[in-house]
Amino acid sequence: MVDKRDGRVGLVIVNTGSGKGKTTASLGLMLRAWGQGMKTVMLQFIKTKTSNYGENKAARKLGVEMVPLGAGFTWLSRDIEKDKALAREGWDAAKQRLCSEEYDLVILDELTYTMKYGWLSVEEVLEALRRRPSWQHVVITGRDAPPELIEYADLVTEMKEIKHPYKSGVKAQPGVEF
Amino acid sequence: MVDKRDGRVGLVIVNTGSGKGKTTASLGLMLRAWGQGMKTVMLQFIKTKTSNYGENKAARKLGVEMVPLGAGFTWLSRDIEKDKALAREGWDAAKQRLCSEEYDLVILDELTYTMKYGWLSVEEVLEALRRRPSWQHVVITGRDAPPELIEYADLVTEMKEIKHPYKSGVKAQPGVEF
Repeated sequence: MVDKRDGRVGLVIVNTGSGKGKTTASLGLMLRAWGQGMKTVMLQFIKTKTSNYGENKAARKLGVEMVPLGAGFTWLSRDIEKDKALAREGWDAAKQRLCSEEYDLVILDELTYTMKYGWLSVEEVLEALRRRPSWQHVVITGRDAPPELIEYADLVTEMKEIKHPYKSGVKAQPGVEF
Repeated sequence: MVDKRDGRVGLVIVNTGSGKGKTTASLGLMLRAWGQGMKTVMLQFIKTKTSNYGENKAARKLGVEMVPLGAGFTWLSRDIEKDKALAREGWDAAKQRLCSEEYDLVILDELTYTMKYGWLSVEEVLEALRRRPSWQHVVITGRDAPPELIEYADLVTEMKEIKHPYKSGVKAQPGVEF
């Protein structure tokens, strides 16, 4: 039997930098993949479990699996052990998807922060990427992607902020920012 | 009657730079807006009229209007007058949407090239942006966004290429690149 995925080269794509568009571009990839009939899962490492943003509503309507794992944990919590446990739990959920033959595209939204704060080692992440099916695409987003991850990735884009509306006093707008 | 759009501040968002993710991030915004029940149109200034990329398939499935206007015209054609006429025709279609109260989000994909090649003046584009409904969001993508447009925009992100798979000999992959 010929697998339609034979010959496909799974890419590791990293969207990093301090500008807007890292998560948004990963949503665009999700939409393209959906258009091509590919199966996607998006794991959100920072978004709270009760998220109801435009992207969560859209994913539900599309039938795309979107898993909010966090509790807004990075900058809010004062309980570091709890943060670590949450990151660990999220990473276990991610590893299950990465080693599954079910998914064509796995999006690990804001995963970089778990490495930045030392809750996960970069080596552990690279190990899971190396072991995934060869045709599986992975997108990792977040500021401060570690150099070892950039080294391993196939496509890395830095989103650089040139101008931001909050600075001119405009509130976040539904449908655009969330 | 209260318009649900009252109080919303329409943003002009520019995704520029030579890296990946400019169009892709605009697709992410389209998806978010769709999730929020907002009405979007995407005009593609460069994509050929016969485009059948993942994003075109997805838009059809979502019921989002996506209009390929170009003929891949920028770097392929040798007939400059024909290019100009196509750009003009595309711009007329765009202006209709920009002055319409129907759309919450208007995406002008790769519009910058029409200005770069001198087929449209920046002033003409700014004029249409100024006249649009105050709550309408607009996204403009493409390399080399002109300084006057950056000055006028609310949110500008530069997508900067850090690493690209074509350089290591990997072909464009369906669902990711198109």
